Amino acid sequence: MEIEQTLFVKMALDAWDTYVSRTQKLFDTFTDAQLLGEVAPGRNRGVYLLGHLTCVHDRMLPLLDFGEAHYPGLTDIFLHKPDKTTAEIPSTQELRRYWNEVNSALNENFQRLTPEEWFQKHTSVSAADFEKEPQRNKLNVVINRTNHLANHYGQLVFLKHE
Amino acid sequence: MEIEQTLFVKMALDAWDTYVSRTQKLFDTFTDAQLLGEVAPGRNRGVYLLGHLTCVHDRMLPLLDFGEAHYPGLTDIFLHKPDKTTAEIPSTQELRRYWNEVNSALNENFQRLTPEEWFQKHTSVSAADFEKEPQRNKLNVVINRTNHLANHYGQLVFLKHE
Repeated sequence: MEIEQTLFVKMALDAWDTYVSRTQKLFDTFTDAQLLGEVAPGRNRGVYLLGHLTCVHDRMLPLLDFGEAHYPGLTDIFLHKPDKTTAEIPSTQELRRYWNEVNSALNENFQRLTPEEWFQKHTSVSAADFEKEPQRNKLNVVINRTNHLANHYGQLVFLKHE
Repeated sequence: MEIEQTLFVKMALDAWDTYVSRTQKLFDTFTDAQLLGEVAPGRNRGVYLLGHLTCVHDRMLPLLDFGEAHYPGLTDIFLHKPDKTTAEIPSTQELRRYWNEVNSALNENFQRLTPEEWFQKHTSVSAADFEKEPQRNKLNVVINRTNHLANHYGQLVFLKHE
């Protein structure tokens, strides 16, 4: 069982690493000014997607029982509200730092989790519901958030470098 | 082990089903004429992404050892060549039919695979390499193709209905 579980975890974490690293490389190709552009006419700006992804990843910390979110202030700006509705947002440089920092914090916690712990419930499902739906475990959060990241990565590649 | 394997297979297939169903619903909201539009200025047309996703899913059939691809002719047009470089492509109506048909074929095969079989090697990795890298199994193909689909889904939502 140990070997099989370790393998599942590796498969899910490899996919996560692939998209985090791909997205990181893409963000690095853009200047702060370029990130202020929209990915498509009338759509989200690069900087909004940077903040949105940072916020969603930051919120994985409490969801996976790794402690509190580091930047709870991002939720209102980058999750509850659409782009271009809040005048004051953190600077792009700050957001880049948060993005790196949050992904590092996740990664450190990922490394120390045992395979058994990955199959335990995440914090937003009750023990009773988890008994009926054991797929609502921590590893599933990573699988779903990888798809979320891939979804927005597909949009960020449209951002212009000119 | 059986229970853990079954659970992990369910987690990966649920994520696949979520994005296939979401993408299907999105395609259904577009007319054939709307699918001829580009998802963003100068980017792929909706119809190209429909063909591309159909092709990539069709090629999962041989990769997962479920038999031959049903529409091998799509590979040259929708995988090897970029959009707008081939004059003759199948009609949008045909592509919609292929898309449904290929996903149904995959789904039927998915249902009959045992958890053990999901952890066997896919057809493009050698037995020797698979011994060293057991994560290159059939289920991993589904995980990776789900991310591929999510990536393009994120682009298709930009296609205009007007």
